[in-house]
Amino acid sequence: MNGMSTGTLVLLRHGESEWNALNLFTGWVDVHLTDKGIAEGKRAGELLLEHNLLPDVLYTSLLRRAISTANIALDTADRHWIPVIRDWRLNERHYGALQGRNKAQVKDKYGDEQFMLWRRSYDTPPPTIEPGSEYSQDTDPRYANLDEVPLTECLKDVVVRLIPYWEDTISADLLAGKTVLITAHGNSLRALVKHLDGISDEDIAGLNIPTGIPLRYDLDENLKPLNPGGTYLDPEAAAAGAAAVANQGGK
Amino acid sequence: MNGMSTGTLVLLRHGESEWNALNLFTGWVDVHLTDKGIAEGKRAGELLLEHNLLPDVLYTSLLRRAISTANIALDTADRHWIPVIRDWRLNERHYGALQGRNKAQVKDKYGDEQFMLWRRSYDTPPPTIEPGSEYSQDTDPRYANLDEVPLTECLKDVVVRLIPYWEDTISADLLAGKTVLITAHGNSLRALVKHLDGISDEDIAGLNIPTGIPLRYDLDENLKPLNPGGTYLDPEAAAAGAAAVANQGGK
Repeated sequence: MNGMSTGTLVLLRHGESEWNALNLFTGWVDVHLTDKGIAEGKRAGELLLEHNLLPDVLYTSLLRRAISTANIALDTADRHWIPVIRDWRLNERHYGALQGRNKAQVKDKYGDEQFMLWRRSYDTPPPTIEPGSEYSQDTDPRYANLDEVPLTECLKDVVVRLIPYWEDTISADLLAGKTVLITAHGNSLRALVKHLDGISDEDIAGLNIPTGIPLRYDLDENLKPLNPGGTYLDPEAAAAGAAAVANQGGK
Repeated sequence: MNGMSTGTLVLLRHGESEWNALNLFTGWVDVHLTDKGIAEGKRAGELLLEHNLLPDVLYTSLLRRAISTANIALDTADRHWIPVIRDWRLNERHYGALQGRNKAQVKDKYGDEQFMLWRRSYDTPPPTIEPGSEYSQDTDPRYANLDEVPLTECLKDVVVRLIPYWEDTISADLLAGKTVLITAHGNSLRALVKHLDGISDEDIAGLNIPTGIPLRYDLDENLKPLNPGGTYLDPEAAAAGAAAVANQGGK
């Protein structure tokens, strides 16, 4: 617990996955971490320990790369025993028909403008994925209780599914004074940061979140950040990591 | 889900821990798995897959060796995304002042009879551990919400703390038709099996549960086993494992 004040939020983007390393669009495809990603999870746990920022509760997506990163980080920080809540609303953005495709090849084929529109525009989703195709999740048992499994999503779609969950569920733990760790994905975390920091639909395109570096937000009683933009536990590594994310799509 | 019938229970004792390998009494001390223990977790996941016995929900103790075993087994079985509930009531028996002591040395010092009484009698707890001492858990933050952190426990104490939790919480998932995985410890699982199979206070002394081999119970609408004694997914390995547990204390 964080004493009597309002809670502390810690955002953690999963470590490098096998498809990050292969430069493929991943979305809801459930890939494993690489050895580098495992090391990033461990480093994240060490940073939590060094800063004595010990989560009381974990929220994760339903995707292995976030779940594994959280397991490794919490085991390293000796907090493996905290309660955990998994929810699809924290999933990465569904990348539609781009899932499984090479980012550099997509960029070459469709051009820089279309590529950046799919990656960073607020409300232009990629083409829908074919239901039943190799990288579709429409029959995945973990989504069996959804009314409709997405076939593609833009960032706005992620905001629409995520923010009600933030307001109805995660907020209660923060208002109770807990330190809440959310281990999720580039775009689900961008959606949340957009909401927290009041970033416009245009400006969110320029925000990149690095992998594996905990981002701390201290929140007031309205859950507005006392430290707008948040505070990375390793600011130098975070700056280098954000730049690397921004440059994805190169070869 | 297990269709419309009453649920299926799967019990899994954690894989070998560092202190199993060193022949030390462990109890609530939070040790890591060995490489063998990690391999046992993986094998458990493979057995779940081979038998198409896919858990809908996980219950674990608050101890790393059970949590890690569950994480590894579920990741292997592609069920890493299921809901998880952790509770201290599934913890191993607290071994009191014996925690951290070598089993063979305790047997030599106190004799076979006292040794077996502490290990296998139903209602004789070991001497209490000194609060604040190296292997005591009285100031461990994960137990901060307990009225009283145990200083020792006999198997009866485990039954008293575990069975109300079984009846109030775990049972509801089974009655809803779910396949429930419980990943826990030698003595918390013995306490549960004693209850399920109606084993007497005397006869429970002879029951040993091997590590890393899923034990399946099919339950009727009163949560009584349709297969008394349960069914190990690998019966040969289970028989060898149970014999090894029975012989602990040797050098």
